[in-house]
Amino acid sequence: MYIGIDLGGTNIAAGVINSEGKLLITDSIPTRNERDSKEIINDMIQLVETLIRNSGFKRTEFKAIGIGIPGIADDNTGNVVYCVNLNWENISLKEPMETSLQIPVFIGNDATVAGVAEYGIGKMKNYKNGIFLTLGTGVGSGVIIDGKAFTGSHGIGTEIGHMVVGDNFYDCNCGRNGCLETFASATALIKYTEKELNAGRKSTLQESIKTSKLDARMIFDAAKNGDELALESVDRLVKYLAIGISNLINIIDPEIFLLGGGVSKAGDFLLDKIRLEVENNKSFRKIDSGIIQLAELENDAGIIGAAMLGKISL
Amino acid sequence: MYIGIDLGGTNIAAGVINSEGKLLITDSIPTRNERDSKEIINDMIQLVETLIRNSGFKRTEFKAIGIGIPGIADDNTGNVVYCVNLNWENISLKEPMETSLQIPVFIGNDATVAGVAEYGIGKMKNYKNGIFLTLGTGVGSGVIIDGKAFTGSHGIGTEIGHMVVGDNFYDCNCGRNGCLETFASATALIKYTEKELNAGRKSTLQESIKTSKLDARMIFDAAKNGDELALESVDRLVKYLAIGISNLINIIDPEIFLLGGGVSKAGDFLLDKIRLEVENNKSFRKIDSGIIQLAELENDAGIIGAAMLGKISL
Repeated sequence: MYIGIDLGGTNIAAGVINSEGKLLITDSIPTRNERDSKEIINDMIQLVETLIRNSGFKRTEFKAIGIGIPGIADDNTGNVVYCVNLNWENISLKEPMETSLQIPVFIGNDATVAGVAEYGIGKMKNYKNGIFLTLGTGVGSGVIIDGKAFTGSHGIGTEIGHMVVGDNFYDCNCGRNGCLETFASATALIKYTEKELNAGRKSTLQESIKTSKLDARMIFDAAKNGDELALESVDRLVKYLAIGISNLINIIDPEIFLLGGGVSKAGDFLLDKIRLEVENNKSFRKIDSGIIQLAELENDAGIIGAAMLGKISL
Repeated sequence: MYIGIDLGGTNIAAGVINSEGKLLITDSIPTRNERDSKEIINDMIQLVETLIRNSGFKRTEFKAIGIGIPGIADDNTGNVVYCVNLNWENISLKEPMETSLQIPVFIGNDATVAGVAEYGIGKMKNYKNGIFLTLGTGVGSGVIIDGKAFTGSHGIGTEIGHMVVGDNFYDCNCGRNGCLETFASATALIKYTEKELNAGRKSTLQESIKTSKLDARMIFDAAKNGDELALESVDRLVKYLAIGISNLINIIDPEIFLLGGGVSKAGDFLLDKIRLEVENNKSFRKIDSGIIQLAELENDAGIIGAAMLGKISL
């Protein structure tokens, strides 16, 4: 048995999985992230104790606990290096959990963990090298190399959202200009479209935003209906995402790319455009490169992937 | 004992190294790359036979032969996938060499091989994760992950010179626009400076190019002497190389970057600028990232690194 914890800014969700990756029971508590890290860690320990009790399995049957963090986690030191949602900086997480629970603890970035879930039981199952990209508020990623979650030497590897791929009209939160996530996230899609709408561009979206706040789905729907501005916004996202993917082909050369997160809900409409643009962007046209597919797992991927950190090891 | 072969467009150099990476004897023959691949491969077989004979060691004492190729080599299939200098496409190399010589053969890209040499006996010796960048006619790279040469799933991984990092005034040979090698190679430095000189920019270089063809060293020398255009050219190279290195920090996060190739001969003048610019480019300022140093090994790195392919395995 394995326990996975999805530590979010709002909720802490946890569950027990068996060695096939099947989720047996789950539980969750609010994070209340205004509190000190010690209190949040104590709550996680209690949550695990409750899960063990309710699972019906003995403590000795649990081989590992994994925790997905919405920030930078260094499994070597066991510390959360940096997590803006929780206001954590260099917080020791592995040590207090292991001391209290007497079960090995593994920690990882939440996108890495979602990639691990796809590798364990999702669409990356039959591959040894894959890149999972989650296109949401930002752009996160989980990289599997040679069957292992890859996170680099200081835990900042695979922060692929912060690969610079061009010049952009606004700076990234990280301070640089041109990061992939300022082109290929839902936020980026909305920002560009809003800028054009504010400049008075004609679009069916001008009507929609009178009654509701602009979101990525509205833009994709308008694009599917042929709205010129919405199509331009989507094509701009596709252009830079394709540069990012093509760069990753030339750097990591995985067997498969998986696209997840809110933006990926646009489905085949988006996927077809990206595949075409990546094909046009290939540096080595005659050589095979990774296939591109939509991710499979939904909300539980955070718990399952975290639990699997102990199976595939960071 | 190990044999390394540096297969170049002009010469084929080879040598014997011992298990400490010490080069014992070398030999070389012209490539005559207009010939059929079979003839060139036969010449390499003969060159190895001569080396074994002259080494004084028995054939059974040779554990492996490694070959560095100026193109894309897939060690899994044993094929040279693509090599523009030799006009090779999908040429089987490992199989005919092994059949004839009865010693295991490993193949790799020449920049990968140079990275392997730095990892084996050079400045990367004490690290497990490092990126070697060779800044010459193009930009090549050798990536070591977890103590192994990393080349991706189809042999096109670590073609880092073809990471797009911005918009450029000319397209890359690969067909894309904005590849790192169109900003950070000697060729790129010369192209930009020539463009500005042709536009009539004032520079001490206007005088120099009356008597000699513009090269990277002339530009670096002029920059060191405070020539405004030359400084601008160097700073442009530094700007984009720093974007590339910062991207690699966010993707692979190695412990060390090594800069080699002709451009790196500019020494500390270049290194200081790059370190400063990479520091300014960091997405995660508070988190350590790889150190940046100049590569150490010179011409023999190609033979030594190739020989070491068999020691560290691709």
